[in-house]
Amino acid sequence: MGRVTTRTPVTRIALSDGAAAVRRRADTVAVEEPLEIRIAGEAFTVTMRTPGHDLELAAGLLVSEGVIASDGDVRAAIHCGGPGTASDGGAAAVPLTMLGTPALALAPAPTENTYNVLDIALAPGLDARARELARAFATTSACGVCGAASIEAIEKRSRHDVSVDAVTVEAALLAELPERLRAGQSAFDKTGGLHAAALFDAATGELLVLREDVGRHNAVDKVVGWAVLDGRLPLAGTVLQVSGRASFELAQKAVMAGIPILSAVSAPSSLAVELAAESGLTLVGFVRGASMNVYARPDRVTA
Amino acid sequence: MGRVTTRTPVTRIALSDGAAAVRRRADTVAVEEPLEIRIAGEAFTVTMRTPGHDLELAAGLLVSEGVIASDGDVRAAIHCGGPGTASDGGAAAVPLTMLGTPALALAPAPTENTYNVLDIALAPGLDARARELARAFATTSACGVCGAASIEAIEKRSRHDVSVDAVTVEAALLAELPERLRAGQSAFDKTGGLHAAALFDAATGELLVLREDVGRHNAVDKVVGWAVLDGRLPLAGTVLQVSGRASFELAQKAVMAGIPILSAVSAPSSLAVELAAESGLTLVGFVRGASMNVYARPDRVTA
Repeated sequence: MGRVTTRTPVTRIALSDGAAAVRRRADTVAVEEPLEIRIAGEAFTVTMRTPGHDLELAAGLLVSEGVIASDGDVRAAIHCGGPGTASDGGAAAVPLTMLGTPALALAPAPTENTYNVLDIALAPGLDARARELARAFATTSACGVCGAASIEAIEKRSRHDVSVDAVTVEAALLAELPERLRAGQSAFDKTGGLHAAALFDAATGELLVLREDVGRHNAVDKVVGWAVLDGRLPLAGTVLQVSGRASFELAQKAVMAGIPILSAVSAPSSLAVELAAESGLTLVGFVRGASMNVYARPDRVTA
Repeated sequence: MGRVTTRTPVTRIALSDGAAAVRRRADTVAVEEPLEIRIAGEAFTVTMRTPGHDLELAAGLLVSEGVIASDGDVRAAIHCGGPGTASDGGAAAVPLTMLGTPALALAPAPTENTYNVLDIALAPGLDARARELARAFATTSACGVCGAASIEAIEKRSRHDVSVDAVTVEAALLAELPERLRAGQSAFDKTGGLHAAALFDAATGELLVLREDVGRHNAVDKVVGWAVLDGRLPLAGTVLQVSGRASFELAQKAVMAGIPILSAVSAPSSLAVELAAESGLTLVGFVRGASMNVYARPDRVTA
């Protein structure tokens, strides 16, 4: 397991009446480190992330990109050494069934920086799909050259139809979620530098999972990855609450995981609104105090 | 030119004493659209961005990735149609020298979605470097499997040494920049959904350029792209002020453009601090009111 926060020396300057108070002290910052994700030993992508829950991050990313859709699709995972060492016997792949809570139980191999390379073995037939995506990975969330093409690509790729989810959610519950998200962020208070995403049951308001990361897309990937590895996809009847803005990419991740309601503390983008409207995702933004804006499928929000 | 903001219908819910006031109205959101960047007709990357200043965005990205370093490195650019149409005579490449303010004067070819594909012609010898990077683009800002390797890759790639820049900046000036950045954001007030980046002269405080985008890395790319196309690299003696957090990627972009001071309204990440310390970049964070934290090279900040 990597560190989520670290200490660093900082020079604090406070100006007052033209004078400056300068003091040197230690400060806590959020850790950012690259994670290389490999599929069957081949490079798939590298993402900057906050260490921890790496397998969930990788699994969530693979759900978002349409490579996997259930827990059986991931057969094994291993934190390994640098290029080439994974197959050199430095560490053996550990079947997921032996791992308990997967992201926590992953044992790093005893070589340098082992925790920044994660090699994943998929179920037969899924490697080709992953390779194809790795080649086109520069496109990340978008495949086309216009918004409509990007939305169409998601609709083709998604195995779940969130538009038919009959879930409803009370506006009063939605209004509480940003505060509950913030209260669950263990590392944010120390650093001010972490995004968060959490999954709630739309009916009961129960918090199902919460994850933090320097990248908000990573925080959502970790949530979706937790769910797919726990056999919970599609995530019918849930609300995904995120700490920042709602971009196309976050709306895509919700749709791909079968989440019917995405709620953001801040503003949505135009393409997030369009994707939500076309796919039947309820999109809520600017949830502040007792008010909120619903940009798509407001029929699911009850007063 | 694409649109920066657009109108969308929204359901506004305001809760009060258990009752809900619901009204339907129009709201303004920030536009997010994919931009496909091609080098000599070949796909380089696709990024989600707010339309406008597309050539600057592409040029800044190429600086950050170490492909170009001066205005002479970009020979021509064209907004073109879908795959294959660029070389079909649908539109002729326009030499940059004919374009005036490049990003504004680019004429889209008369085919569908022309403004979401930008084809760039580089100076001889640079295409191979771009192709190599396109293959490895999944790694974006990181090349290694640990933070140290990522930092080393930037140091190898950068043509400028920001550590030797003798610039200093007054703490009182730094304290003003977030407010000046905010005041210059024309689209933020309408949408609440745009990041911003601006370049200031460290000595005089003069605003050199300000750009907005749904992606904060894009906003910085547009600033750096403006500078490289204007023949201003390296950007010695300047401060780059950003609206959000300071990630490794943003610190990388500053270093690659020869910017000696990066200031963020919010928190830096651990790897941004490490890169700043190793490369001699002054990194300022949490600039709020009259106080700020300096995470690296505080000797440049005068009281």
